[in-house]
Amino acid sequence: MKITRFLLVGMLCLAPLAFAQAPAPPAAPPAAAPPAVPAAAPVMITDQDIKTLSGPDAKARANGDPDGSLTGTINDITVADPVTDKNPKAKGLTVGDIASQVGQNKIAINFTWTLITGFLVMFMQAGFAIVETGLCRVKNANHTMMMNFMVYGVGMLAYWLIGFAIQEGGVGAVANLGASPVLSNEFSITLFGKSWGLWGHGGYFLTHAGAYDVFAMVLFLFQMEFMDTALTIVTGTVAERWKYAAFVVSSFVMGAFTYPLFANWAWGGGWLATLGSSYGLGHGYADFAGSGVVHSVGGITALAMGILLGPRLGKFTRQGKPLAIPGHDLLVVLLGCFILAFGWFGFNPGSTLGASGNGNLRIGSIAVNTMLAGMAGSFGSMLYMWLRYGKPDASMTGNGLLAGLVAITAPSGFVNTVGGVIIGLIAGVLVCLSVEFVEKVMKVDDPVGAISVHGTNGLWGVISVGLFADGKSNYGGSWNGVDGSVKGLFYGDPGQLVAQLIGCATLIGFVFTFSFVVNWTIDMFLGQRVSAATELAGLDMPEMGALCYPEFEVKTQSVGA
Amino acid sequence: MKITRFLLVGMLCLAPLAFAQAPAPPAAPPAAAPPAVPAAAPVMITDQDIKTLSGPDAKARANGDPDGSLTGTINDITVADPVTDKNPKAKGLTVGDIASQVGQNKIAINFTWTLITGFLVMFMQAGFAIVETGLCRVKNANHTMMMNFMVYGVGMLAYWLIGFAIQEGGVGAVANLGASPVLSNEFSITLFGKSWGLWGHGGYFLTHAGAYDVFAMVLFLFQMEFMDTALTIVTGTVAERWKYAAFVVSSFVMGAFTYPLFANWAWGGGWLATLGSSYGLGHGYADFAGSGVVHSVGGITALAMGILLGPRLGKFTRQGKPLAIPGHDLLVVLLGCFILAFGWFGFNPGSTLGASGNGNLRIGSIAVNTMLAGMAGSFGSMLYMWLRYGKPDASMTGNGLLAGLVAITAPSGFVNTVGGVIIGLIAGVLVCLSVEFVEKVMKVDDPVGAISVHGTNGLWGVISVGLFADGKSNYGGSWNGVDGSVKGLFYGDPGQLVAQLIGCATLIGFVFTFSFVVNWTIDMFLGQRVSAATELAGLDMPEMGALCYPEFEVKTQSVGA
Amino acid sequence: MKITRFLLVGMLCLAPLAFAQAPAPPAAPPAAAPPAVPAAAPVMITDQDIKTLSGPDAKARANGDPDGSLTGTINDITVADPVTDKNPKAKGLTVGDIASQVGQNKIAINFTWTLITGFLVMFMQAGFAIVETGLCRVKNANHTMMMNFMVYGVGMLAYWLIGFAIQEGGVGAVANLGASPVLSNEFSITLFGKSWGLWGHGGYFLTHAGAYDVFAMVLFLFQMEFMDTALTIVTGTVAERWKYAAFVVSSFVMGAFTYPLFANWAWGGGWLATLGSSYGLGHGYADFAGSGVVHSVGGITALAMGILLGPRLGKFTRQGKPLAIPGHDLLVVLLGCFILAFGWFGFNPGSTLGASGNGNLRIGSIAVNTMLAGMAGSFGSMLYMWLRYGKPDASMTGNGLLAGLVAITAPSGFVNTVGGVIIGLIAGVLVCLSVEFVEKVMKVDDPVGAISVHGTNGLWGVISVGLFADGKSNYGGSWNGVDGSVKGLFYGDPGQLVAQLIGCATLIGFVFTFSFVVNWTIDMFLGQRVSAATELAGLDMPEMGALCYPEFEVKTQSVGA
Repeated sequence: MKITRFLLVGMLCLAPLAFAQAPAPPAAPPAAAPPAVPAAAPVMITDQDIKTLSGPDAKARANGDPDGSLTGTINDITVADPVTDKNPKAKGLTVGDIASQVGQNKIAINFTWTLITGFLVMFMQAGFAIVETGLCRVKNANHTMMMNFMVYGVGMLAYWLIGFAIQEGGVGAVANLGASPVLSNEFSITLFGKSWGLWGHGGYFLTHAGAYDVFAMVLFLFQMEFMDTALTIVTGTVAERWKYAAFVVSSFVMGAFTYPLFANWAWGGGWLATLGSSYGLGHGYADFAGSGVVHSVGGITALAMGILLGPRLGKFTRQGKPLAIPGHDLLVVLLGCFILAFGWFGFNPGSTLGASGNGNLRIGSIAVNTMLAGMAGSFGSMLYMWLRYGKPDASMTGNGLLAGLVAITAPSGFVNTVGGVIIGLIAGVLVCLSVEFVEKVMKVDDPVGAISVHGTNGLWGVISVGLFADGKSNYGGSWNGVDGSVKGLFYGDPGQLVAQLIGCATLIGFVFTFSFVVNWTIDMFLGQRVSAATELAGLDMPEMGALCYPEFEVKTQSVGA
Repeated sequence: MKITRFLLVGMLCLAPLAFAQAPAPPAAPPAAAPPAVPAAAPVMITDQDIKTLSGPDAKARANGDPDGSLTGTINDITVADPVTDKNPKAKGLTVGDIASQVGQNKIAINFTWTLITGFLVMFMQAGFAIVETGLCRVKNANHTMMMNFMVYGVGMLAYWLIGFAIQEGGVGAVANLGASPVLSNEFSITLFGKSWGLWGHGGYFLTHAGAYDVFAMVLFLFQMEFMDTALTIVTGTVAERWKYAAFVVSSFVMGAFTYPLFANWAWGGGWLATLGSSYGLGHGYADFAGSGVVHSVGGITALAMGILLGPRLGKFTRQGKPLAIPGHDLLVVLLGCFILAFGWFGFNPGSTLGASGNGNLRIGSIAVNTMLAGMAGSFGSMLYMWLRYGKPDASMTGNGLLAGLVAITAPSGFVNTVGGVIIGLIAGVLVCLSVEFVEKVMKVDDPVGAISVHGTNGLWGVISVGLFADGKSNYGGSWNGVDGSVKGLFYGDPGQLVAQLIGCATLIGFVFTFSFVVNWTIDMFLGQRVSAATELAGLDMPEMGALCYPEFEVKTQSVGA
Repeated sequence: MKITRFLLVGMLCLAPLAFAQAPAPPAAPPAAAPPAVPAAAPVMITDQDIKTLSGPDAKARANGDPDGSLTGTINDITVADPVTDKNPKAKGLTVGDIASQVGQNKIAINFTWTLITGFLVMFMQAGFAIVETGLCRVKNANHTMMMNFMVYGVGMLAYWLIGFAIQEGGVGAVANLGASPVLSNEFSITLFGKSWGLWGHGGYFLTHAGAYDVFAMVLFLFQMEFMDTALTIVTGTVAERWKYAAFVVSSFVMGAFTYPLFANWAWGGGWLATLGSSYGLGHGYADFAGSGVVHSVGGITALAMGILLGPRLGKFTRQGKPLAIPGHDLLVVLLGCFILAFGWFGFNPGSTLGASGNGNLRIGSIAVNTMLAGMAGSFGSMLYMWLRYGKPDASMTGNGLLAGLVAITAPSGFVNTVGGVIIGLIAGVLVCLSVEFVEKVMKVDDPVGAISVHGTNGLWGVISVGLFADGKSNYGGSWNGVDGSVKGLFYGDPGQLVAQLIGCATLIGFVFTFSFVVNWTIDMFLGQRVSAATELAGLDMPEMGALCYPEFEVKTQSVGA
């Protein structure tokens, strides 16, 4: 046996340090410690050692496992070549099986995380629906609900047919979701000596070019819910006067083109994302969960529509003074805000697209930032209104919560909680100022405040990344292909702020113009606004054929048409 | 040292390819490459190598871990025999510990997935409650809510006492949830030379026969929520006239017997599931998440009840012409539809009972199919009503969404997205036609359309598996004990369609008859319908002792009793 | 080659049994089986074997992966030193990488579980809001909603600034969430020869003392939601008469001090938790998910406030007879109960703070106990009211569900389903008796029954642990530092019941006194109750400046002020 021991120790000596995280093995004396301490002698691991690993058998488990100690064991690893009565010499459990299960577990966790957070984002549609409807009048409640209900379907159809391919067709491998190569067709041009990604073209109706793929499905689900969030913002601003048929067409175009284009630039491998790697502007446009991509796109399109359609009859006096037109159900407004805050826990933390690997454990931080900024936003609005008008207004407090959530959406992945609270607090005040500005200065009628909540605070969120990002996040080592963590101006990187401002300029310049032109065209062909008679009667009977609450007695209106 | 090197290389030569997925190791020259390239020399792995693996220590972590790089490391693996000051020669981390943690992680992921999706299914009860109540009249709102509220409890009690044991008592080992053997008592008879499973009998009140077991708990939770979904369908069809006490008894029987029996045949190891392995009919009755098991059982029982109780007073003219009786709150109807669509993301994708292993990563595909079919259903109904009656009706658009979701429930795990959209679109039109048929031809009064949404489209969903299943799903290699993937007629397997049609025939034949007889009996003893006076007054005060909305002024009714 | 074979077998002989769970390797003959059976010869595993493991390549995946068989493989394991074209001699995949990924996966699962269940708990705020508002009158609906809406923000601010540091600053390492050392500052005194933990002081605004840490974030989110649940209970009892400004101040104090102090004693390493390890009283105060910590603290503070503020005008006749004041919307009351039951699936099962490791697979059991006790509670109340007053009352049935859920919260982790059903059934009856007692005997006006639901049944839940805990749970081997499982009196441990009763005495003695004094002080400075004129008019216009439902016609009130 001596020679064996000798060899064992000898082999160890020539072994280079085998594992990344492993500290150096206890410096083995160079073959000079033959006898003694047998307990410490390293033992080699063989395939048989692994093959013979096993957990509790069926007999041990027959009486049940109340405390879970017999469940979830080695037995549960999938074995490629299992030992059976017919195949007693099979390999049984191997290191390869263990490693495969580890990889499978990682992707399964990340699919679970991304899907469930995606489901939460979907539920935000319900929140938007009742917030907007509660802020409208009884006579338009069915119509407002139906727009919010069908925007989900209209957007989804457009996105399945066209939008997803444009947005994500060239996104490339997503490590968190298994690094599938099926979405890798970005159309780019070369400009100023660098490649500018313009749009993707792969994955039409989840069938084209290998897109019938489990990864593509998970990505589609999550991104679809985001797109639909942007679309439903618009229905609030032009509620109580939008022709239902025009709404369907306009929303289809937005889901097929407007949203996916900007989303491609920011998230799908397009030119905004590469401002860092191409031109040294920080990490390029950084928008963690879409203050710009989702909320500003929605809010700015809403602004274009609000200008195009004009105010509701009776909103402004002949002198141009805006009159308040109260919503009909504050209970559902605040219930809807809670649903939105709930769903936002999907929106922001889910945007990691995973929980395991690549610094994804920061999901907790993202969730807390989201929660705190929403809180700070509701405080900001409540206190502003209380101090200015003497009462803590419910609608604006709800909008303040949403404004804080919108603002934190872009920075949630990059800031600490103090930054998050400051961003939210500013958002809460900003939304009040913006509502007044939109109404009193721009003379745009926005029944639910969507332009201010999503447009204004979406831009504020994008900018805040360029100020408050603290350089402590590290998602697998780089962001947008630039090594290191995103840092804002306050932490020493002015270039990041420039990238954010370029994003804002693009939102205002491109999205507004594109949306305005598209919807002006639809207006020419279809007409986007209902007749004055319809508007005065309320849209429910003329447009939808049914009242929302046919049995309740309703007061004769005194304010608004 | 030469001999060591020699031996090392020699050993490698005789090593059969050790790992399933591993490509052949770089063909090692047969002992003929003694010196050179020491970096490439294989190094054996010993228990000490593994024991000495470690992650960052407490000191490194004392300043916090903002980016998650120090959290979730080797340190987090549970060690059976940890090295401590008292036990410095303990084994420390071993391959067995790593493998145990891998198995534990797999089952933990699958428990997490199944539980959270089960929670989402539970939330569907809220959706059903407000959809049904919103479609009823103010005077019956408390009664309708209370039926929907207590059906959750009544069904759960019945299922805990009896139903679960019948349905799942013989389900056997479920690999995704840890392959516990505690539920393995199926009562079978031999017929035509094959075993026919009829019902299970194990796990009464989660205590009997080892059922106090973590696996059994997870399965119970998920299956309980499914059963309750079936029960709550019935309350819609016979709303506004069902005696509350009779509702309690009838629902108990359905949760204890009607539902569990059919569910055993389809999912619990019973005879419908084995039509493939026993008689070569495709993969046997394939109903991924229960278009038949849940929705048709609910819808067909609803039909039996609708026939038994007769229409509401005032629903039909003396000439038998049906009159529309509008619901009192469309806001909650559409809100409820959103809640249901949200919960359906638990219903269908959760039916894998896991995310890791066995082809479970298809959960993304299942979720997307669900989403798209719901969308297509809402489009189908909206367009049908718009074209036929001139307005996009809100109630029917909501029902169209639900019809699409019901129809995709069975095929969601087996079809691609194009198939899903077609199935949903057909469902959306079918529900409109079915509502007209039930009302005008069958003269059955169904205030919420539950027979058409769940019964008709449940059958359509079952059939659609036999048409559109594309043979690209592979849940661990077989389904219902038949190797390969489920394929419908359009992909070359007519036998699958036959199995589906046998399922439909069983639903119509057995469930209708059984439900009718049971409820006729209850009617004899208890009386199932309230008095005409109660119905005219509204059920809220006479049956429940309280109005739903005591402070709001309500219009005098003009339609309906 | 002979010598190699010889050595191989020889090494095996001296290998001590290498793995914890591994059965002894097939007794290898002591070097005496030289030729034959080469298939069974153990093969050593080398770093090269592992380095060469790989999954399907990009080419194989280019056509998509519909069934998930190519996704989630060895390729997905993060490799510290990956082989690339530039670095062909890198280590590639190592055992250390595999083990690191296993640890990362475990923590990722547990973060996922804790965060998602925490999100569900947050959604309970919506449920509380509409349950309480639905049980109030139309004229106070905006005010009640706003209190429930802002209690979320007020509590969160207080907790971020102060409360979290007090509660969790000394909690120490939480193995399920990665065992970070950053929260380990408990202030303790020595009393009766033992250390008594009084409060923590670390982690102020998630920045102090290393609290910018992914673990601390996840813990904060979960615990914050719990704290806010306690706070929102109070708003129900003093609804329809609480001055909004006083509500803000009072809630802040409760979130900063009252709740965190008791929570520290029970969960944060404080003296109630160590009653077992210090004084041998079972496992110390055991409150799995907070029947006492959350619900009794809320309910007992509500009682103090109810006494302090006095009843609503018109609640009692001059003779002291209580009059019923019905809520204005039973639909939202029961919808809210469903939301709460949904969120409770986060509350109780989430309190494991993980799914993988440490006996966490018991989450299924905890969820089922929760579900069943809620069911039993609704049955208990429904039947009690039906038998006593002739009708199955909707409000009390909803409260019965909540009472069952409150009661099971503490024992959910320690009892079997039969125990859970009994606990819930008793809770359902107890809540009815308590409502009568509070109203008729104590003459305290509690519009929503929060004192009885949360206070009384919270105490019952705490006591029930000391009776029904069955000793079959085993969360990593010990609870509160005492080896073994928690056992109640019925399973042989009277000491546990004593610990529970000490907890109850502390709740009644400390929390009531502290809350009363604090709120009495606030009353002195700010005034807590609105004026009689405001109360008669309804709080919505005077306090909030807007009606909840400005367009609906409301009946002239006949009952209540």
